[in-house]
Amino acid sequence: MTQSFELDCDTVHYCWDNAIEPRLAIKAGDCATFHTRDAGDGCFSRESTSADAEGGGEFKGHPLTGPVYVDDAAPGDVLKIDILDLELARDYGWTAIEPACGLLPDEDYDGTYLQIWDLADRTHGRMPQRDDIAVPLAPFLGVMGLAPAEPGQHKTTPPRETGGNMDNKLLTAGATLYLPVQVEGALFSAGDTHAAQGDGEVCVTAIETWSKATLRFDVLKDMHIAEPQLRAPGPLSPATATGPHFVTSAQGPDLYANAQNAIRYMIQHLIAERGLTWEEAYVLCSVCVDLRISEIVDAPNWLVSAVLPECVFVN
Amino acid sequence: MTQSFELDCDTVHYCWDNAIEPRLAIKAGDCATFHTRDAGDGCFSRESTSADAEGGGEFKGHPLTGPVYVDDAAPGDVLKIDILDLELARDYGWTAIEPACGLLPDEDYDGTYLQIWDLADRTHGRMPQRDDIAVPLAPFLGVMGLAPAEPGQHKTTPPRETGGNMDNKLLTAGATLYLPVQVEGALFSAGDTHAAQGDGEVCVTAIETWSKATLRFDVLKDMHIAEPQLRAPGPLSPATATGPHFVTSAQGPDLYANAQNAIRYMIQHLIAERGLTWEEAYVLCSVCVDLRISEIVDAPNWLVSAVLPECVFVN
Repeated sequence: MTQSFELDCDTVHYCWDNAIEPRLAIKAGDCATFHTRDAGDGCFSRESTSADAEGGGEFKGHPLTGPVYVDDAAPGDVLKIDILDLELARDYGWTAIEPACGLLPDEDYDGTYLQIWDLADRTHGRMPQRDDIAVPLAPFLGVMGLAPAEPGQHKTTPPRETGGNMDNKLLTAGATLYLPVQVEGALFSAGDTHAAQGDGEVCVTAIETWSKATLRFDVLKDMHIAEPQLRAPGPLSPATATGPHFVTSAQGPDLYANAQNAIRYMIQHLIAERGLTWEEAYVLCSVCVDLRISEIVDAPNWLVSAVLPECVFVN
Repeated sequence: MTQSFELDCDTVHYCWDNAIEPRLAIKAGDCATFHTRDAGDGCFSRESTSADAEGGGEFKGHPLTGPVYVDDAAPGDVLKIDILDLELARDYGWTAIEPACGLLPDEDYDGTYLQIWDLADRTHGRMPQRDDIAVPLAPFLGVMGLAPAEPGQHKTTPPRETGGNMDNKLLTAGATLYLPVQVEGALFSAGDTHAAQGDGEVCVTAIETWSKATLRFDVLKDMHIAEPQLRAPGPLSPATATGPHFVTSAQGPDLYANAQNAIRYMIQHLIAERGLTWEEAYVLCSVCVDLRISEIVDAPNWLVSAVLPECVFVN
């Protein structure tokens, strides 16, 4: 008989550490509903401004809900996670541009910026200052991961072999995630909900918010993987896949520099053609523009494309 | 009054060189139909085998149809190209794995391999040896470009600021391409038709074939761009966007290495779950698996995803 559990977010942890005591022990086939805090640990309200985002000090780590111990999960197994449901738990979200973070260097812009998004209708993110932009929501958990085998405390920011801060926008409700288990019981935690994000998450934050996510867990003894894999239902990104897309591209021998240039061209386009400020344009890229590797074989120049769904422009 | 022209592929050129005599001069608003040879310049037939692909010597360059001189196009302008129609001109195509080419190093595999595709129904590419695989076709010109300002002969393989071998799968019929003009008359040429390709074109070739493409040209004096841009109709990749997608991912500080690992994991998956040979799996990745940059900000580890549309598996 399978069971359903619920984990509040009054208790969270801010690093990966296989010594953290599990909050819950479940069996294969069980479900658990995770209440999750936002990546900023509640530091921004609907009324926050760019001034509130300045001088925040060092990032403490993503507040994560968990860990959950899954009976019978052992090193070498795969933990299968079905993402059954994900509901936003706030009617607003935020996106911050922060110095020394993000794809573009500090020389490209002037300091910190905070964008508040209205999520009240649960279907679109709206910039209060611009009634011509509505980004379709496609929420997912930016962080889903397992405790690593290596002892000690590990930062939450980089994704790892055991998952973690993957920021993979394909992990919306309906998807199935496969994570390689490194410790007894797997020790799963989650957090960092993104109401919408482009592939790349270029300004370092998406539409950040709180959520309630229901997940089902299974243990696969016959599957062996080195890094996370997933299956996503089709079509991908159905809310933004409609309508035309505008695409900038950049070629050269370095994929990272190409991605920077493709985003710079997209920002220039958004300023010139849509009248956005530089900061609004960078934020919009982070929440809805997808970075694709168009070709990676025409030596010495690889091509990166930045793909903007033009359905985000309304009115 | 606008006019329509036709260019056969009896005459081609194998490099970019602004001294090549234009085959045709047109005005803004005119259309031209380009007959194009395949990237291999006709070296493979429907009966060709891997043995035919061995020891081919140095690549001579893509055979390109053109150049076309567009009246009034001057350096600093943008040449706008509407891709009105693209018809395949052969009922077969090919994909080759060649040593020292492609995303994966030679150590990963055993020499040259040639895959012939049956394109007879014009909607899917089918591997004759496997009746359970049918890749939906979405043909585009791998090369569309303008002569560079720099004198002399330039290789066709790398994409350039003026376009060329972009291998951007978004450039199917219905899309509009914008290229920066560097010389008087723009000097446009095209070739290298791909009947289907994944983002990345990882094994160095797509489903290579011949085509007839009808393009409309305009000159934009008020647009200024450093590299190619485009607008694509939505939804993107409608033929493969349906159904579930299986996704492998790889993280680390180097996007290129991550792309290699994501493709390695996908090949392992295709061998284990679908019974493909290593070579069939690498070829299938090249013609239908998309490389995405899922995140590029969670220092020090960026995440690359390889996205397989499972609708290619039939029966």
